[in-house]
Amino acid sequence: MTMDELARQVKESSIKLAAAGAELKNKALANIAESLKEKKEEIIKANRDDLARSEKENLSAPLLKRLKFDEESITDVVDGIYSLINLEDPVGKTLLSTELDDGLELYKVTCPIGVIGVIFESRPDALVQISTLCLKSGNGVLLKGGSEAKETNRILTEIIIDASAAAGIPSNWAALLETRADVNDMLKMDSYIDLIIPRGSNDFVRYIMDNSRIPVMGHADGICHCYVDEDADLDMAVNIVVDSKTQYVAVCNATETLLVHEKAAPVFLPELKKILDSKKVELVGCPKTRALIPAEPAAEEDWKTEYLDYKLSIKVVSELEEAVDHINTYGSGHTDSIITRDREKAVHFMDYVDSGNVFWNCSTRFSDGFRYGFGAEVGISTGKIHSRGPVGLDGLVIYKYKLLGNGHIVENYFNRSKTFKHRSLNKEF
Amino acid sequence: MTMDELARQVKESSIKLAAAGAELKNKALANIAESLKEKKEEIIKANRDDLARSEKENLSAPLLKRLKFDEESITDVVDGIYSLINLEDPVGKTLLSTELDDGLELYKVTCPIGVIGVIFESRPDALVQISTLCLKSGNGVLLKGGSEAKETNRILTEIIIDASAAAGIPSNWAALLETRADVNDMLKMDSYIDLIIPRGSNDFVRYIMDNSRIPVMGHADGICHCYVDEDADLDMAVNIVVDSKTQYVAVCNATETLLVHEKAAPVFLPELKKILDSKKVELVGCPKTRALIPAEPAAEEDWKTEYLDYKLSIKVVSELEEAVDHINTYGSGHTDSIITRDREKAVHFMDYVDSGNVFWNCSTRFSDGFRYGFGAEVGISTGKIHSRGPVGLDGLVIYKYKLLGNGHIVENYFNRSKTFKHRSLNKEF
Repeated sequence: MTMDELARQVKESSIKLAAAGAELKNKALANIAESLKEKKEEIIKANRDDLARSEKENLSAPLLKRLKFDEESITDVVDGIYSLINLEDPVGKTLLSTELDDGLELYKVTCPIGVIGVIFESRPDALVQISTLCLKSGNGVLLKGGSEAKETNRILTEIIIDASAAAGIPSNWAALLETRADVNDMLKMDSYIDLIIPRGSNDFVRYIMDNSRIPVMGHADGICHCYVDEDADLDMAVNIVVDSKTQYVAVCNATETLLVHEKAAPVFLPELKKILDSKKVELVGCPKTRALIPAEPAAEEDWKTEYLDYKLSIKVVSELEEAVDHINTYGSGHTDSIITRDREKAVHFMDYVDSGNVFWNCSTRFSDGFRYGFGAEVGISTGKIHSRGPVGLDGLVIYKYKLLGNGHIVENYFNRSKTFKHRSLNKEF
Repeated sequence: MTMDELARQVKESSIKLAAAGAELKNKALANIAESLKEKKEEIIKANRDDLARSEKENLSAPLLKRLKFDEESITDVVDGIYSLINLEDPVGKTLLSTELDDGLELYKVTCPIGVIGVIFESRPDALVQISTLCLKSGNGVLLKGGSEAKETNRILTEIIIDASAAAGIPSNWAALLETRADVNDMLKMDSYIDLIIPRGSNDFVRYIMDNSRIPVMGHADGICHCYVDEDADLDMAVNIVVDSKTQYVAVCNATETLLVHEKAAPVFLPELKKILDSKKVELVGCPKTRALIPAEPAAEEDWKTEYLDYKLSIKVVSELEEAVDHINTYGSGHTDSIITRDREKAVHFMDYVDSGNVFWNCSTRFSDGFRYGFGAEVGISTGKIHSRGPVGLDGLVIYKYKLLGNGHIVENYFNRSKTFKHRSLNKEF
């Protein structure tokens, strides 16, 4: 089958899936969870084949680790599916209802986006997570995984399609793409695919963003900042900066740059350095920083770099406004935190920093769909259209307007024989 | 000043504008309205210069008509600004509030998108409408009008910038671009511009969509359908189809294709033809249509064509499903209406037709922000990301997450010394 035909089939099925009720979708999700448990030996075997082949092909250790999909991974994704079942159906919610005139009722009702293209590197758990999120939100999905995980991805996709079909979902709602050429084809299919979600490295996400006219939801960089104000509780500030930098360095919501008010810096930086030294964090800093603590000089490039490592860049600023400007210039619009006792300054920071997540007196590491209580997460978006910050199921729906009349025509309102009433109905469709 | 510098200035000012309160923005809007009235002679003179030059340059009559900006146009845009002032501020609304844990509060609050790039052909009223919508929603704006309207656009932009600056809005929040080269520069400025709104012909909108990686809000085609079901009230159906086709033919929500159930067609089509003949509507049809009424044969291309004229393509279908498939294949996702007495069929149609506006027993011409009661309209979107259908002020905002803590760090939740509570707060930020 050609890629074009495959995408057309998914598109067609997505329209039927869009009309499926919550009960049917949840039944399909439960079937998928049960089937994953039943077939765990086969899944683990397929993954062992992928691991063996990839080891032979000298795949790097971190990538091998991400490729591994064992009994624990299966338990995790199955738990994820059960919590997804318990979430409210995002489709069919009435967002607005207005009586335009007697007998002419307008409803704005949530519906699926249509077809989502998901492109991910090695991690097979992303395949299960995103495809079940798409199912719950009524979207068709084209999945493209890394070739290193091809056996694992095949069996997982087969299980997901078969188990959902057994519940009554049209089997073409999901499809797996396998070759690199498929990705480039996919990026051109704006007539069938409504949204692309890339999961992977910065370079990978940026490549996708640069090579498709289809909207992309995700983030390339996560250059997060902590700003320690002159009015900060310095013990609290040390705790928050240490957590933001070191709690888990390889993630997008870890802090990469620390900004410190010049009045706080002389006491704060030496205290902070003691803890960061114990965690082996490499420091680079501006000249004012280096006058207070030992650190390598920071280059312009450092302010734009997502280290994803035990490394922190530090800049001493003379006022709040300088911190805000620095963040808006070098940040990636992901997550930025101010540590201060002064509410007014905190509010100013949160108003003026142009990021999806703006924090006061807490760690940047809280920027996450599970921590926010969304239950399931599609990813974190640094875009400013549709969804921003951690994206839950709500990010996979849009709405349509349904207008119910009784022979109403516009000419009557044009010639003023009738006038609009625009009364709020507060009524579900 | 280079284009890059100009865009950077607008971006910087947009961050200050984002934090402006409703009162300040409304004061600026009132200043703009007053200033437009005061300077109406100058505006009309500038427009006369544009008209005279464009006439000499042999601009077509319809384009000259759109270019004209007279006393009535000024009254209209001023009225528009006063109704905009009365609309609720779309910025600063709390969409969600959750207590993640004791003293750790999450708020999802609406905020402006940032910088909007607006590109429009001749009509100067679009410049006033969109820039005041951007101001009300706290967005910076880069305006690019047609060169035929350059004098009118210059004076309008000057008035808007000066009058808003007099109220205390940073003067760089808006800027006018004038050359064709500026447009292509603008399409590349994804680091400064967050959204592009093109207003103009289909080809123009498609060019913009094809040549920028910045998200575009709008529609290229409006291929709208009426489907007359076997269970339709045929008198009502005639009224609705005539209104949908002829009430105003040159607009995107006018119907281009009529689908008729084969059981309704023999009685319905001859009745409809009588009225359409009196309005000089040219008909093209499928073979089954032509067996019932005189009409030219419809080619495959007709089903994909937005006539924007007194012309209608007609297809007889054997069931509801065939109508739905036709619309999903050839339509543009704009507006489609079913005429039937059968509620179940209507609901099916509205669920399965993948368009932004799905209607039951009323004219497709209702698809409009003013008729929907939104008060002001940015345009109509056939996209499925962010906004769909008629877009009001809500389409110009996004949200940010504000998290307020008291020294909270993630490590405590990771090592299970603390657990999340995720209690809904129902509290405004």
